[in-house]
Amino acid sequence: MSSENTSIQMFGIKTPIIREGDDIVKILDKALEEAGLVPIDGDIFVLAESAVGTAERRIVRLASVTPGEKAKVLGEQYGIDPREMELVLQECDEIFGGVPGAALTITKGVLAPNAGIDASNAPEGNVVLLPEDPRKSSEIIRSRLEKRYSCKLGVIIGDSRTQPLRLGCSGIALGVSGFVPVEDARGTDDIYGRPLRITYKAVADNLVSAAELLMGEAGESVPCVLIRGAPVNMINESPDMPTIPMEGCMYFGNIIKGRPKDKNCEKNV
Amino acid sequence: MSSENTSIQMFGIKTPIIREGDDIVKILDKALEEAGLVPIDGDIFVLAESAVGTAERRIVRLASVTPGEKAKVLGEQYGIDPREMELVLQECDEIFGGVPGAALTITKGVLAPNAGIDASNAPEGNVVLLPEDPRKSSEIIRSRLEKRYSCKLGVIIGDSRTQPLRLGCSGIALGVSGFVPVEDARGTDDIYGRPLRITYKAVADNLVSAAELLMGEAGESVPCVLIRGAPVNMINESPDMPTIPMEGCMYFGNIIKGRPKDKNCEKNV
Repeated sequence: MSSENTSIQMFGIKTPIIREGDDIVKILDKALEEAGLVPIDGDIFVLAESAVGTAERRIVRLASVTPGEKAKVLGEQYGIDPREMELVLQECDEIFGGVPGAALTITKGVLAPNAGIDASNAPEGNVVLLPEDPRKSSEIIRSRLEKRYSCKLGVIIGDSRTQPLRLGCSGIALGVSGFVPVEDARGTDDIYGRPLRITYKAVADNLVSAAELLMGEAGESVPCVLIRGAPVNMINESPDMPTIPMEGCMYFGNIIKGRPKDKNCEKNV
Repeated sequence: MSSENTSIQMFGIKTPIIREGDDIVKILDKALEEAGLVPIDGDIFVLAESAVGTAERRIVRLASVTPGEKAKVLGEQYGIDPREMELVLQECDEIFGGVPGAALTITKGVLAPNAGIDASNAPEGNVVLLPEDPRKSSEIIRSRLEKRYSCKLGVIIGDSRTQPLRLGCSGIALGVSGFVPVEDARGTDDIYGRPLRITYKAVADNLVSAAELLMGEAGESVPCVLIRGAPVNMINESPDMPTIPMEGCMYFGNIIKGRPKDKNCEKNV
């Protein structure tokens, strides 16, 4: 193999079902040992939000939720269980409308259907909320893994999203620790030596999308993927995911200008 | 390594700059040989659209383009060279509006800024259009690579996109050959054995996003990534990328309802 060629390896880490209050680092430790994998400098762990949320006891029994009037109206409108809709309203920062089965929200700063609340991969009658603070979760997990394996690692809490007009789910990073999640390529040149026009690389999101190839969405019990050799910039921080304003977004920019004021779609009415 | 663990390997394939009329398969053949890589059954080649478009002579000298009135108006509105805007209008199926520097279009059935026209990685004063028919391009390239290496391969023509409210580019598949680009996970169960709610996996898009980790956007001269071991369903076809209707899209569904009729934003006025 020529040293000019870069390569990346990805390993799906199979674990037992993760339950409320489980110690996710201990579970990973055991799973890695069984797989004969020893983390090395620069390895990135991509963890599914549902696994992290479950371990963090972010499970809610739907029977324990009493929906308010607003949740009843919106639940009816979007075909969502009013108790789940009540949780969506509690969890989200903003709600935009949606389509049958999915209210489109901004939750923890990120676009998400139904505030990222997941009924799949939750015990019967329950839903899993997103980790309370994905950035902090990634930081804590990284810190413990780095101590355990005495090397510099990256951790991502990842989730699934549909993309505009595309069928199927791809990956998105909710929280990251240990590397630069979006790389600014301004100042770099194209193959002809001229500065680039498209200037940011969604490194963290791409790592999650790559991991989803092995994670799947279903009962595969692969809540973690270890990515080795990815050319990322490792840092000893847990940076916020950078955001762009709605006006600067190619999709929302012009489109939102004319959106009707649907009072039901505002969170705090 | 336990056999229970699945793994994927990705190799960045460095080539000389690809020029108009180049034979991309011959170039890949040479690059693979130099890298000591021999394709095997199930390998997926992700190719950058700009490399394929260039080889297919989809290069246009801007000085040769005379912008019409509409291109002048829209070019002014979005801060785009009116000659490039003219090409955008010629190439796209539909135009929605946009933000400074990017008109949002549907081109070859896919959402794209500026009809996917790329000034980066094109010779000075030129732009690269998307391959005329990415599905067909992927089919031809796959057929030749399979013959050359006597094995079953997959080929993707990939491009970069920003995602709603996210900073940075991730991957999208424009055309695929040899595998199922979007997998229907309906009928599969979650870890508790219940049917899944989110039911489609954007396999092809995720493969491109994974490849982008090695491709970069800039002068890396890595127009191809070979992905080995991805758990995809190989088929002997070149399926169209499945689409979803605008009304069924979480982002466009409700949002477009209220969009103002901006006559300038319609393609055929």
